[in-house]
Amino acid sequence: MKFKTALYLVPIPISEAPVSDVIPSGNIEILRQLRHFIVENVRSARRYLRHVDPSFPIADCTFSVLDRHTPPEEVADMLRPLRDGFPMGVMSEAGCPAVADPGSHPVEIAQREGLTVVPLVGPSSVLMALMASGFNGQGFSFHGYLPIDDADRRKTIRRLETESASRLMTQIFIETPYRNNRMLDTLARTLSPSTMICVACDISDPEHERIESAQAREWMKRKYDFDKRPAIFLIYAGAKGGDARRYERK
Amino acid sequence: MKFKTALYLVPIPISEAPVSDVIPSGNIEILRQLRHFIVENVRSARRYLRHVDPSFPIADCTFSVLDRHTPPEEVADMLRPLRDGFPMGVMSEAGCPAVADPGSHPVEIAQREGLTVVPLVGPSSVLMALMASGFNGQGFSFHGYLPIDDADRRKTIRRLETESASRLMTQIFIETPYRNNRMLDTLARTLSPSTMICVACDISDPEHERIESAQAREWMKRKYDFDKRPAIFLIYAGAKGGDARRYERK
Repeated sequence: MKFKTALYLVPIPISEAPVSDVIPSGNIEILRQLRHFIVENVRSARRYLRHVDPSFPIADCTFSVLDRHTPPEEVADMLRPLRDGFPMGVMSEAGCPAVADPGSHPVEIAQREGLTVVPLVGPSSVLMALMASGFNGQGFSFHGYLPIDDADRRKTIRRLETESASRLMTQIFIETPYRNNRMLDTLARTLSPSTMICVACDISDPEHERIESAQAREWMKRKYDFDKRPAIFLIYAGAKGGDARRYERK
Repeated sequence: MKFKTALYLVPIPISEAPVSDVIPSGNIEILRQLRHFIVENVRSARRYLRHVDPSFPIADCTFSVLDRHTPPEEVADMLRPLRDGFPMGVMSEAGCPAVADPGSHPVEIAQREGLTVVPLVGPSSVLMALMASGFNGQGFSFHGYLPIDDADRRKTIRRLETESASRLMTQIFIETPYRNNRMLDTLARTLSPSTMICVACDISDPEHERIESAQAREWMKRKYDFDKRPAIFLIYAGAKGGDARRYERK
């Protein structure tokens, strides 16, 4: 892979799958040349570097921590190595940095300063869930977490359903894993019986991946246990696959 | 990679980058075991198979064409090999199948019939553009194509800007390549001067990739030529990186 003095956005596996199943080998070549990192979690970043290359010179590396507790005014300073001509890597705890995590802040600063930003290929639970749901991939929204308060949550779910039906948008969101079963129960009871719900769980895991789409009324009858497993939720109330309206310009 | 009797969603490179830079080697192992395909374009599908494995037994394979001209009632039949116990692959012209292309229709049918669907990792211009934009990755929408009619287009752009500001959503859309410059000009003139615009062009191409974010007012002054190059457009008018509002539950 052609190497540049850039801020590389380095995806991390999201399951126990072998790295070669979910990460292009070109990413590893890039990683081997990096010594300066912005990471969500230093321990898991080091573990990944050692995993892909047991001889990785970790003692020669710098790691700046960027998580949701990092004071925003400290982020600009983290890019100093890049300003000085050294390529850098951004790694989140899992998946693609700057999607559903705080990683976009250093990218925003790098863009403002005209520094080169290079996104690498890797697993994104949001995108892979969308692909496998069978829902509309020509219009979709990711919303992060829904409100915790039950009344607010139901109101938000109904709003997302209405927008999904009128704009043919797939609506995607996440939940903290110990609340997954409760989320699915609320969805099945709150949505119209014919609205589609997809649960995408343990994505890319060779043993446990389970990605299932069904109408709300069917989920009411199913047995499931998604608690404590990483999951993505999708709902869709728009025109079905093959319907020409999906291709219309908005 | 663990192999299943499943509908595999097989991403295809989106640039001239070496395959090993953008596709995990595990995907190739899966591909080697597939003989039945649903593809957007037969010639480019065959070319890709031959490229990743010059000895791929293409003469033993079946290819069903799924593009925007395919009659919807023909799609269910394409899954017959899978129902008979043979794993299948879905490949679009470029990128991740079922995102921004018609590939979701067979996935929808497979899900309805309880067939296993497995999404593989690969390049997605939508997701990679989002990562590298520096815009909010905790809330975003993809809209496909905007209207062609100039008045409708401006109205849509203003609506997306208003929603971006109020919901902190990154708004993502595409344009036919020969209209890219006109699109960027319209965006820069229609949006508020401080609204951010990102153009992500030739993503993953080792020579030509260019992903740049700047305020609308800055794009007015810049020289650019994105015509006839694959590009993704993103706009963002919400809270900046590090702002706690980005993490709030909706």
